[in-house]
Amino acid sequence: MNATRAADLLTALKRRGWTLGVAESLTGGAVCAELVSVPGASAVLLGGVVAYATPVKHSLLGVDDDILSQHGPVHAGVALQMALGVRAAVSVGGRAADVGISTTGIAGPDSPDGQPVGTVHLGIVTPDGSWTRELHLDGDRAAIREQSVVAVLDALFSTLGE
Amino acid sequence: MNATRAADLLTALKRRGWTLGVAESLTGGAVCAELVSVPGASAVLLGGVVAYATPVKHSLLGVDDDILSQHGPVHAGVALQMALGVRAAVSVGGRAADVGISTTGIAGPDSPDGQPVGTVHLGIVTPDGSWTRELHLDGDRAAIREQSVVAVLDALFSTLGE
Repeated sequence: MNATRAADLLTALKRRGWTLGVAESLTGGAVCAELVSVPGASAVLLGGVVAYATPVKHSLLGVDDDILSQHGPVHAGVALQMALGVRAAVSVGGRAADVGISTTGIAGPDSPDGQPVGTVHLGIVTPDGSWTRELHLDGDRAAIREQSVVAVLDALFSTLGE
Repeated sequence: MNATRAADLLTALKRRGWTLGVAESLTGGAVCAELVSVPGASAVLLGGVVAYATPVKHSLLGVDDDILSQHGPVHAGVALQMALGVRAAVSVGGRAADVGISTTGIAGPDSPDGQPVGTVHLGIVTPDGSWTRELHLDGDRAAIREQSVVAVLDALFSTLGE
């Protein structure tokens, strides 16, 4: 992990006055933990949800049951709804986070629903718009998760146009 | 981090048929991420909440506003209520997680409410009972967070009597 990646991202968000929520599945909290490693992260990061079990993606993040039952949890639409939903989940004083990011995918070694190990979807929602990104990653469970952490932080940074 | 710590804990919980939810503040998702590093974690771990901003400890985990306003977020009672609350937060099919664990504390370098850096409270709730533990840790921000991850996993394991 580039030691300044999370710090640079938090600085760019703080400059805009934007707060952040993080919704994670395969990364399991590692995106949020990387952000919390930066002193002063609390000025931007409100919190996160690790929606590891599929039903928790619906109950805590508001992902449609229909999309989960039709497509399973590894799907661009699920990633988008996770990023949308976490902004409200971490609301403070009735104000949702300005930015939501998400990860969902298959870290392996097994693939419960037949999609290739290394298939990962990211979701990014900011006041400027929303994006999803599909990744096909190589490596073992740890490598796939680590690459996913980097990818979602970089994806958000790139939407900021810095 | 002992590579088998999280795996041994998940094995012990699975043997009991117990599911797990994780509520984190200063560790920021690192406890959950350590558990997700174990293949097959989904048999036990339902999910987690990173309640980094203090109001999110109330809104997502149900920690009493009174205790937060009287004592601040770094308090044994807050840790206990975080561990209690996360079990419901990660419910699946109307069934709360059997076990909840939590971390709240001051990783530094600054201390927003005057308590010493390195003050950490852990909460553990299982079907057998509930416990809190207060730690006073040395080291920098990364060291305090890492020790807190290890401590909460070990604290839960020790309550299992294995």
